[in-house]
Formats: sequence, structure tokens, C-alpha cells
Amino acid sequence: MKNDRKTASNLSSSTIPSQAIGVFDSGVGGLTTVRKLVNMLPNERVIYFGDTARVPYGNKTAATVSAYTCECVEFLLEREVKVVIIACNTASALAMEAVQRISPVPVVGVITPAAETALRSSVTGRIGIIGTRATVQSGAYQAAMSSILQKQGLEREITVIAEACPLFVPFAEEGWHYHPATRLVAEEYLAPLKLANIDTLILGCTHYPMLTDVIQDVLPNVRLINSGEEAVGVADAILHEQNIHAQERSLHRIVDCYISDKSTAFMSVAERFLGFPLGMAQEVRLKKG
Amino acid sequence: MKNDRKTASNLSSSTIPSQAIGVFDSGVGGLTTVRKLVNMLPNERVIYFGDTARVPYGNKTAATVSAYTCECVEFLLEREVKVVIIACNTASALAMEAVQRISPVPVVGVITPAAETALRSSVTGRIGIIGTRATVQSGAYQAAMSSILQKQGLEREITVIAEACPLFVPFAEEGWHYHPATRLVAEEYLAPLKLANIDTLILGCTHYPMLTDVIQDVLPNVRLINSGEEAVGVADAILHEQNIHAQERSLHRIVDCYISDKSTAFMSVAERFLGFPLGMAQEVRLKKG
Repeated sequence: MKNDRKTASNLSSSTIPSQAIGVFDSGVGGLTTVRKLVNMLPNERVIYFGDTARVPYGNKTAATVSAYTCECVEFLLEREVKVVIIACNTASALAMEAVQRISPVPVVGVITPAAETALRSSVTGRIGIIGTRATVQSGAYQAAMSSILQKQGLEREITVIAEACPLFVPFAEEGWHYHPATRLVAEEYLAPLKLANIDTLILGCTHYPMLTDVIQDVLPNVRLINSGEEAVGVADAILHEQNIHAQERSLHRIVDCYISDKSTAFMSVAERFLGFPLGMAQEVRLKKG
Repeated sequence: MKNDRKTASNLSSSTIPSQAIGVFDSGVGGLTTVRKLVNMLPNERVIYFGDTARVPYGNKTAATVSAYTCECVEFLLEREVKVVIIACNTASALAMEAVQRISPVPVVGVITPAAETALRSSVTGRIGIIGTRATVQSGAYQAAMSSILQKQGLEREITVIAEACPLFVPFAEEGWHYHPATRLVAEEYLAPLKLANIDTLILGCTHYPMLTDVIQDVLPNVRLINSGEEAVGVADAILHEQNIHAQERSLHRIVDCYISDKSTAFMSVAERFLGFPLGMAQEVRLKKG
């Protein structure tokens, strides 16, 4: 890590458009965010870091998640990314402040952007959140919504119903996106949300976009919000504001993928999540790994 | 770690019956083995280490699994256990040699004991194995069976059918031991084993005993072998041979449980797997954690 860290405020003078966007996730889930990023901002290069040696974060303590996330983000910062997207809900819920302290470039989590869109999108004010047990227990989405409403000076009645869906991650990774068992699991997890008559649902885990079809079928009239896609939207706005969008399509590889442990199953899951061939993923040994 | 490591051969002179049995697993699954241990050897004290900060091992490389396992076993050895049970199929498949190199006391994995019992139990020689992707891909059970038959000088035709069942672990942890979705998943995973007409099935993951009922219902005429229970049987034989069985029931806590990361969900899953209250689990920071 360099010692001459710049602060976010004096950044635009030295950051240049050809620098990559850094995307971090605890594992493979963040590649659904990269998929959106590549669609929405096709000129941008991406450096992805997946902490596959220590995944999942969803059942770890806040202190552990914070330490792990900072170590991985340092890896991205050393590669001089112009913005960091934390494409992991657990890390966004538990480690944002710690990451912002160490980063000289803007850091975008998935929680505030998705909370903002949910508040804008919901007509009835009845909003559902699904995620890992850690994300749900953190109450981070509820806190983000309260904070947004407070800043906007709005007194609006919002009802939030949050449900942990621990089996969705393994189903997404197994590739059973629309298996009868997936449907049964979805019906059981989503029943309280259906009963609560929500009109908007935040997919509060970057694995869940892989299960969009089955979730939408169980909740047909609900608007689904992809938290990773919303984070990309905010990163896009930052690049625009600082005038550091990549000007032309890079001739380099679009996505450079680094992982902390390479298993045989990684590439097939990664390419399914990404939606196109990744080519390769490079294994990196972390100091604390 | 002490420098004056004793070798297994000169051990019985200094090992005493009141020392505990060390049980290691990558997470919570090994507690199904502890449950059998406490039933089979009620006088013995157990020191359990679950590497919950780095679970699961099933999708990690052999080098990583080996390094992590040795670090955790060193923790047990520092507490002067008289025998170590590796109650994790992935670690038994990938790290046994490395652990045996560092351990002055006998080390028992789950693979050879279960392979021996399967060979003894099977009448038709058609044996199934289910486990994580890493365990299945390692081919460790097949290698163990070949080695046993070779030692016995037997020329016996054995057909082995191995299937990875990655969703069984999350279903067991979620506590959906007999949910309709669990049944659908089991039917799909076990279909090739049913078709292959096996008469014996090794539960090659210490989580799977939690799903015994649903597995037995899908394969009604198949003998299920609990790999953790078989490992306890071998450890029992070693204690007998060395005359170091605990002579009377300890007044101390029966199970001392250490974990590398304590999540809020741990205790409820742990006690369900163990079958009785654990009381507490102590968090330990690993050097490499």
C-alpha cells in the first residue's frame, strides 16, 4: 500500500479516465454486478477481486468481515482503480466505514443505492428485503432508508419486511436457477413478503439476480431491485461528475479477475454469473490468508 | 507448539487416560461425529475445533486445505489431546499426510474407516459415495478401498459410484432435514446411485448424518455408513490398544468447543448437530486467520 494516499476530494486532478473500476466481493456473487457494469458502461475496464479463500462472509463477525474486506480493497487500490464498488451486501453492511477510511478514491457500496431506488420506486411504502442472515440482522438497509428520508426531510410511512434466504446462494451457485426444489424454497422464504403485500423487493445479495425468474414468479407484481445494478448506477454518476469515464473501449481484457483461492468449480460458476467467458482468473495469496 | 514432539510409537508410555480426544472439522459438521463419540465413549472428554472463519473447505485447493488443517490441529495438540479425529472429509482427503507429519499422537481420518466398513458391509460390491465436490473429485475413497483390498490380498470386483451433493450441507445447516425441497434435491442427487443398484452408501461428509432420514427414504434398501461414526470406532480401538481409555466420567465439561469465528447462527446449528446443549463456544484467533 502506498503511503501518499490521496483523499477523495483532491482526486479528480490526478485520476485519469483509462484507470479501471475495482469491484470487490467475498466470492463469485459480485460477478452479477460486473455483468451489469459491462452492459451499462462498455468502455470501462474492470479489476475484480473475489475472496474465495474466505467466502462466505455472511456467517462471520463484523470485525472479521471488516478486516478481510479492507485487505482485499487494498489489493484493488494498489492497482490504481478510479472507484471501488463493494459488490457484497455483507461487506457493505459491515465494512463501509473501514474501507472509506483507507481509500483515496470513492467507494460505492450496494446498500445505499438500492435503498434509494426502493424508496423512489415504492408507491405503497411496503418494501421487502432479502439477503443473507448477516445482512438482514445488520439492519443496514433499514438504517440506510431512515437516513435517506431524514436527509430528504420527508415524513413518510415506510414498512420494511426483511427475510434471510440462506439457501438461495447455494442454489444460485449450483446453477439450479429454476428447479422445482428452488421454487419450493422460494415459496417458503418469500411467503411472509407476499403476505405483507410489498410492492418493491431489494435483492440484498449479489447472488440473487441469478434467481430473478423464480423470485418474480412467486412475487409477480413486485418490482425487484438488483443492488449491484444500483451500485453501478452510482459509480457511473461519480465518473460523470468527475469527468473520468473511459473514452473508448479498451483493447485490454475487459475484466481482470483475481481470487484468493482457485477451486475447480470457480470458472464455470463465474462465467455463468458473468454471462460471458472470463478467460482466466489469477490466484493471489493474501498476507492474512 | 512444543519442540519435543513424541512419535506415535513411544506414546503410550507418557499419554494418560484423562487426556481429551481432539476433534477437528472445518466448521460445524464434525459435531455429528462428536455426538456419536459422546454416545459411544461417554467417559471421554472432547476438545473440538471448528474452523468457522474459513469454512467451507470443500471448494478450496489441496494446498490451502492442508495448511489450514495443520494450523487447527496444532491448536488441539497444544492442548495435549491423546488422539486426533479429523472429522472432515475434505481435510481427510487432502491433508492427512501433512497432519500425520506434525502430530506425535495418532491421527484418525474419516475416509479409511468408512471405506473399510463399506467393503465389509457390501454384499454385491456396488458401493456409493456422496460428499462435497472436493471429496468426490479427490477420489480418496476409491483409493482407500483399492489400498485396503490390496493389503488384504483380495481380488474382489468393486463398483464405486460417487456423486457430489453440494446442496446437502446448506440444507443440513438450515435445519430443513425433511422439507419437501430437501426430498426433491435428494431424489435428484441420489438418482444415479439408485439406478446403479448400490447396497451400501458412504455418507462422505459429516453434515450428511443430519439428512439420514430423507436419504434412507430415497434409498430404502441401502446400508448408510456414517463416516464420523466409523472414525470414532477406530479411535476407540486405538485407545483400547494403548490402554488409555478414560476410566471414569469427567467432572469437567464433556465438550470444549473452540471456533475461529463466532457468528450468531453458530450455537443453534451446533446444538442441533450435537443433539445436546453445548453451553458455550470459545472464539480463537488463528495466526493466519
